[in-house]
Amino acid sequence: MTTPDPTDVHPAWLPPAAYRAVGSRHTLVHGDGPLVDTVFAEVQRACAEHGGTVRRTGDGPPVQLVLALTAHRSAARPDATPTATQSGRTPNAARPGSPETAVRPGWTEAVDPGPLGVNVDAARADLAAAGGGPLGPEGFAVVRPGEVTVVLADDQAGLLYGLFQVVRLGEAAYGPPHPARVHRPAMRRRMLDHWDNVDVHPVMGQVERGYAGGSIFWRAGHPRRDRDRVRAYGRLLAACGVNAVSVNNVNVHATEARLLTDRLDEVAEIADLLRPYGIRVHLSVTFAAPVVLGGLPTADPLDEAVREWWAETTQRVYAHIPDFGGYVVKADSEGQPGPFSYGRDHADGANLLAGPLEPYGGVVHWRAFVYDHRQDWRDRSTDRARAAHDHFAPLDGRFRDNVIVQVKHGPMDFQTREPVSPVIAAMPGTRLAVEFQVTQEYTGQQQHVCYLAPWWSELLRFAPWGDGERTVADVAADGGGLVAVSNVGDDPFWTGHPLAQANLYAFGRLAWDPKLRPEAVLDEWLDLTFAPATSADPALLRRTLHQIMDDSWRSYERYTAPLGVGFMVRPGHHYGPDVDGYEYTPWGTYHFADRDGVGVDRTRATGTGFTGQYPPPWSQTYESLAACPDELLLFFHHVPYDHVLHSGSTVVQHIYDTHFDGVAEVEATCRRWEWLAGLVDPTVHARVTERLAEQLRCAQEWRDQVNAYFHRKSGVPDAHGRPLH
Amino acid sequence: MTTPDPTDVHPAWLPPAAYRAVGSRHTLVHGDGPLVDTVFAEVQRACAEHGGTVRRTGDGPPVQLVLALTAHRSAARPDATPTATQSGRTPNAARPGSPETAVRPGWTEAVDPGPLGVNVDAARADLAAAGGGPLGPEGFAVVRPGEVTVVLADDQAGLLYGLFQVVRLGEAAYGPPHPARVHRPAMRRRMLDHWDNVDVHPVMGQVERGYAGGSIFWRAGHPRRDRDRVRAYGRLLAACGVNAVSVNNVNVHATEARLLTDRLDEVAEIADLLRPYGIRVHLSVTFAAPVVLGGLPTADPLDEAVREWWAETTQRVYAHIPDFGGYVVKADSEGQPGPFSYGRDHADGANLLAGPLEPYGGVVHWRAFVYDHRQDWRDRSTDRARAAHDHFAPLDGRFRDNVIVQVKHGPMDFQTREPVSPVIAAMPGTRLAVEFQVTQEYTGQQQHVCYLAPWWSELLRFAPWGDGERTVADVAADGGGLVAVSNVGDDPFWTGHPLAQANLYAFGRLAWDPKLRPEAVLDEWLDLTFAPATSADPALLRRTLHQIMDDSWRSYERYTAPLGVGFMVRPGHHYGPDVDGYEYTPWGTYHFADRDGVGVDRTRATGTGFTGQYPPPWSQTYESLAACPDELLLFFHHVPYDHVLHSGSTVVQHIYDTHFDGVAEVEATCRRWEWLAGLVDPTVHARVTERLAEQLRCAQEWRDQVNAYFHRKSGVPDAHGRPLH
Repeated sequence: MTTPDPTDVHPAWLPPAAYRAVGSRHTLVHGDGPLVDTVFAEVQRACAEHGGTVRRTGDGPPVQLVLALTAHRSAARPDATPTATQSGRTPNAARPGSPETAVRPGWTEAVDPGPLGVNVDAARADLAAAGGGPLGPEGFAVVRPGEVTVVLADDQAGLLYGLFQVVRLGEAAYGPPHPARVHRPAMRRRMLDHWDNVDVHPVMGQVERGYAGGSIFWRAGHPRRDRDRVRAYGRLLAACGVNAVSVNNVNVHATEARLLTDRLDEVAEIADLLRPYGIRVHLSVTFAAPVVLGGLPTADPLDEAVREWWAETTQRVYAHIPDFGGYVVKADSEGQPGPFSYGRDHADGANLLAGPLEPYGGVVHWRAFVYDHRQDWRDRSTDRARAAHDHFAPLDGRFRDNVIVQVKHGPMDFQTREPVSPVIAAMPGTRLAVEFQVTQEYTGQQQHVCYLAPWWSELLRFAPWGDGERTVADVAADGGGLVAVSNVGDDPFWTGHPLAQANLYAFGRLAWDPKLRPEAVLDEWLDLTFAPATSADPALLRRTLHQIMDDSWRSYERYTAPLGVGFMVRPGHHYGPDVDGYEYTPWGTYHFADRDGVGVDRTRATGTGFTGQYPPPWSQTYESLAACPDELLLFFHHVPYDHVLHSGSTVVQHIYDTHFDGVAEVEATCRRWEWLAGLVDPTVHARVTERLAEQLRCAQEWRDQVNAYFHRKSGVPDAHGRPLH
Repeated sequence: MTTPDPTDVHPAWLPPAAYRAVGSRHTLVHGDGPLVDTVFAEVQRACAEHGGTVRRTGDGPPVQLVLALTAHRSAARPDATPTATQSGRTPNAARPGSPETAVRPGWTEAVDPGPLGVNVDAARADLAAAGGGPLGPEGFAVVRPGEVTVVLADDQAGLLYGLFQVVRLGEAAYGPPHPARVHRPAMRRRMLDHWDNVDVHPVMGQVERGYAGGSIFWRAGHPRRDRDRVRAYGRLLAACGVNAVSVNNVNVHATEARLLTDRLDEVAEIADLLRPYGIRVHLSVTFAAPVVLGGLPTADPLDEAVREWWAETTQRVYAHIPDFGGYVVKADSEGQPGPFSYGRDHADGANLLAGPLEPYGGVVHWRAFVYDHRQDWRDRSTDRARAAHDHFAPLDGRFRDNVIVQVKHGPMDFQTREPVSPVIAAMPGTRLAVEFQVTQEYTGQQQHVCYLAPWWSELLRFAPWGDGERTVADVAADGGGLVAVSNVGDDPFWTGHPLAQANLYAFGRLAWDPKLRPEAVLDEWLDLTFAPATSADPALLRRTLHQIMDDSWRSYERYTAPLGVGFMVRPGHHYGPDVDGYEYTPWGTYHFADRDGVGVDRTRATGTGFTGQYPPPWSQTYESLAACPDELLLFFHHVPYDHVLHSGSTVVQHIYDTHFDGVAEVEATCRRWEWLAGLVDPTVHARVTERLAEQLRCAQEWRDQVNAYFHRKSGVPDAHGRPLH
């Protein structure tokens, strides 16, 4: 184990050791194009480190790995019936379009190391003949007919993803022969939104909700032009499957607005750096751009001059960035301008921008995060949870094909626990993207270990129309894909907390394959990042990291806001507890605790009626006090403190118990991390140790404040006599 | 009434109209020196406006006003027994040193307009012979023997104050003859502390707790050098009696620290501008200066090199600013460095700085605001209210003569209601200054009308040893005087809220004469500022301003934190309600409300023992639940919601009632202000109207949040059935 310079940028999940298996072999890269060049350069770098060889043609040592483009793409064969093979896959993993399927065994036998080390044409023909179907622009197949591992892709991006699959497999890629395994992404677009500002915002700083230092793109009003850093970022994203990045904050301030026009070169530079990794660049724009940039008197979406302005502006964007991804828009939300100012609706607004993008294949990501942020807390009939559905569901069918309505996973705002947004089930005629938050705004701000893949996995597997029906993942896969707010900054560890890298990795992997188990993704990540194979005690390392991370999101849930009620955070920065912090504010985020009980009545019978926004069975399940899952009880119901949960505990005793338990779990995490001293890089160990101390302090604050608050309000003592303050 | 350019700086209490009586007469100014030049220039400017004349010698029209320096000072005559004459004075106004006394009638008859318009020598001799005693460096006498009004002063500053007294009197200065009335300030030092930063602080901005725009001294790291503005400020301060200004924030950050050394010229420039108005400049310094500026390894007060550094540094300060006032130090407080770091106490620390200042007549203002700001809210045995007394009382007698221990008026932090700090009665062997806060940090931040003179008057008249004994004002007068945090910024109205000018004016006047009635001070201020004599409806104007302002502090108290419990403000910025905002923080500011009751038990019997820091009778009064004044009940006692107050109301009903009443009073204020449209300058009217709308909104928030909070916690409905939410 070497000790890197602490000022170096941490390699995250692509350290040199992760390339050992690839880099110590003889590889042939077959095909042409910039992304194939990327593949070649990656292998070349690995070989320089680990002693293997790589060539694109000609003689050399016997080839052990072939990465090859297929020359032609065959049409999909409807009679091909792939079957699931990968262990641990859920039963419905084999449905068409599922990311990994195995073609019929046998055909791969034809793959033959010919004069170039492998008979690519034969493999290609055989893949087609065997019913593998077209691999698609990003798909690939891995086959090992004998002593050679072959990766085939129809398109360059697929070959790049194939390379990273082989990297992930490590030595396992060179084991016993196996038939072709085809991998295709579930989501066409797997996107990260950066909430980076160009100027340092007086309140939000360089990166809004950024907990990892400054922006990797801008610093204090100027482009950073740290090309190596942006390239390294592109590499990391490609290795976990992300293929789109929106470069700037959805809250578009004055300086940032100009990225669309006179500062477009800065966006083009980023696009140039990310393009070799298969990543398209998107841009957050302000709906008021025709006014603030174009000098027009209006931004009315039905105004002809406004339409012309967007058309000309978009044309200029594509002249600079031919593969530009499109616009991201937060409109009529938290003070951002939007179509409401002109008496138009969000379909009018989104379609305005979509029109000019369409000829170029660009899309509009139009956020559904629209609500009244100046709500009167006294008015219990208004319910922020209802807002997105109220605004958007009636517009279903009115959006152009290249509009993607981007819906936060829950009806509120990236809480540790919320129900799935009812919008996801309400717009069958609209392409929806589901938005996650990798940056840990409400989940510990990268001071706390909080591995979010279990939460995302739960959300993606949720079936809005009931078990056996389509899942959230299916809706996203059929629509606009998966989007998340990035957790990356210019911190040497990328994400502040080194273990928060796992969230970024897991987001990409779950967007590629939402059926991956969170524990399996964690294994991938830790195998790459920590190379346990080279560790002094690989079993301890792996077991301990699982103990620390697998359940960390549930631990965080235990010591923070209880039973799905959400918030209870310090206003503004959202870190640490403040039970009444949002209780009397205009933000629509209340718990209504009084001396008798707590929770928000969102039922149709007696509350805000929010439960009626769900289709059955959830409209009934959530409406019913008896049926509502414990973990969402206070999101849907106002109950007395002595209400008995399904768990058998009362609400107030549950609050006390979970808060004591959550802190005990953090204490265990601290102890466990100590065991890893000497087993992980000392700079990583030191950084995590430091953050764990803060996590423990903060978790104790959460425990004591939440318990004291409910004790003072309810008067109920702890059944176990623990101090409640 | 003219309409000034709204970008002009408002003249506050020195508009041209205020000089009408002076400026329309013939005046002789007799004497030499820079402050006499200031007097002459003031009268000259007034005459240019109003048609009078002013001369220093020679012939001219018959003189109606003489402002003259006496040539010699006579020693105090112990047998002189002045008697109170001014109407409205309290019985103990006549004690020696009281600011205004009348000398025996008769002597003034000798004043005779001789060749220079008045026989100054005769007046001077007569004043002495008649037992007026020495006027002192800032005192003056006003006498009107016949048709000429004469102001006599021993020293230049006295003459300046005499001029402003004549300005204040207006036409009344030229009424029936009267014997000499001698005015001397009660407090030797009447000081304003500016919490101005040189750099814009990332959290606190250009002025910490500033609600009136930027600093008049610095902008974004550089001196503003707006000489006219600083001069105008000096004029306003002289006109209300302030004679010392500390120019920078007591929280001394890196850039501000350098004002002591390489940026000293910036301080000297301000001193040059304020000197003509009798104002000496002080500087806030960091205790760590020997380390951060001097490069020494320590700032230990007993270290020889540290002593030498302070001696040399102070010598350099006086080389630049010969009348430099001294240092202000916030040490070992809220993160500022101090002697505790070196195992020394505050006497060691203060004496270190006092030594080098002594030869030059400089003083150290050493703040007693020392407490643990990282308190554990779970620990009810620690009491922030105790801290200043715990730290400082044991040090009594150990401070050098030129150390002034600067004590906030209350034990907490400038709340709307607190008891008087027990430190004020605990250090007979130490010079104490009492510190007020003109800037409305906790009293509405210059968005709310809150005339603070009634509160300060109450505090100054408070007798810590019981009725008939010495008052807080006496302690300050015998010690270090009165200090306040300024409310001035670069706002065109100086103070954001135009009516907040009255607080600045009243502070100066009460520091000069703590026995002035707040209503009388308000009359002075409004006569100068609004010139009702020239108004279309002077009676309405005067009556309405009194209705709006006289009781505004009590209104503010009614709709904010109840019964002396304090805080309940939004953390950080301290504006608007947040009942639990500080409840679970390390700041030591709690109310301990639970479902049964509220308040802090500070008794000796069952609480923190804070009541024991007072001498009798207050140690008994506050200890006793029966005797404790209602307005401080929750400061000293934790009581059930149904506890019956002296007023006959229960605690919880009192909370509801006062909060409804307070808002109703603001509503009345809004209506009354509307009546004044057309009677006051329209820019002032517009600004106040705008602020009143915010005050009303905020007062309603206070009412509803506080009432909802206690309703939810207590379960007690309002006796009058009003909505409590």
